[in-house]
Amino acid sequence: MRCFVLDGDVLRQGLNRDLGFSPADRAENMRRVAEVARLMSQAGLVVLVALISPYRKERAQARAIVSPENFLEVFVDTPLTICESRDPKGLYQLARKGKLPQMSGIGDPYEPPENADVVWRYDEHQAGDCSALLALVLQRLQG
Amino acid sequence: MRCFVLDGDVLRQGLNRDLGFSPADRAENMRRVAEVARLMSQAGLVVLVALISPYRKERAQARAIVSPENFLEVFVDTPLTICESRDPKGLYQLARKGKLPQMSGIGDPYEPPENADVVWRYDEHQAGDCSALLALVLQRLQG
Repeated sequence: MRCFVLDGDVLRQGLNRDLGFSPADRAENMRRVAEVARLMSQAGLVVLVALISPYRKERAQARAIVSPENFLEVFVDTPLTICESRDPKGLYQLARKGKLPQMSGIGDPYEPPENADVVWRYDEHQAGDCSALLALVLQRLQG
Repeated sequence: MRCFVLDGDVLRQGLNRDLGFSPADRAENMRRVAEVARLMSQAGLVVLVALISPYRKERAQARAIVSPENFLEVFVDTPLTICESRDPKGLYQLARKGKLPQMSGIGDPYEPPENADVVWRYDEHQAGDCSALLALVLQRLQG
């Protein structure tokens, strides 16, 4: 089974290079990625989409675009304080200094999923433990 | 080997539904499709892109995006008079009535490729003979 990762940062250097971080551009970013995920899924690939996807409405739209029966929403449930303590790219620090006014969770809302198909809690797993995440996804598919 | 067809008409109902037929929108249409073809190619698929792609500059850009060593430009070389006599969607007729001012080859330029990797001449093959086209592509890959 072939898999492919659609990574938000990578896509913003290519397909979505013309988009910024306004709400409209974030929505368009998600719409395009959902369309690409749908095409890749039609081509027989399992697609893992790694985007911030902060808005509930656009996540619902992505599900509708890809097809509801062929879509799992994975919520990596991590409190803002933990995200800030990790801050691998230094973005939270920049946001707190006012240099990234549209940072999700700081100057721009992050709307947590209410009915995610898979929930990954930060305090139940090691960060980056992909096999544990895969196990959760498989559990969900079998359940 | 998995293949996938990226069809211009289909993509304009999805990924590119926000785009029209102005030169800027046509260029953006081609840019996005090239980016998607690149992603699919990275995922191990053979991608067949069926677009009008009327402008030389954007075809060169598409080649650069996908990667020059991984890209074949196929020119389906058919004179305008033959295209008009076929007119399966009635678009040429509309264009001649002035109802499609930006039709490629009528109101908007079609710039024929100068160095296509594969040339399919309308008078050497049956229209729609995919196996003959595939043979031309394979010849090119082996040559």
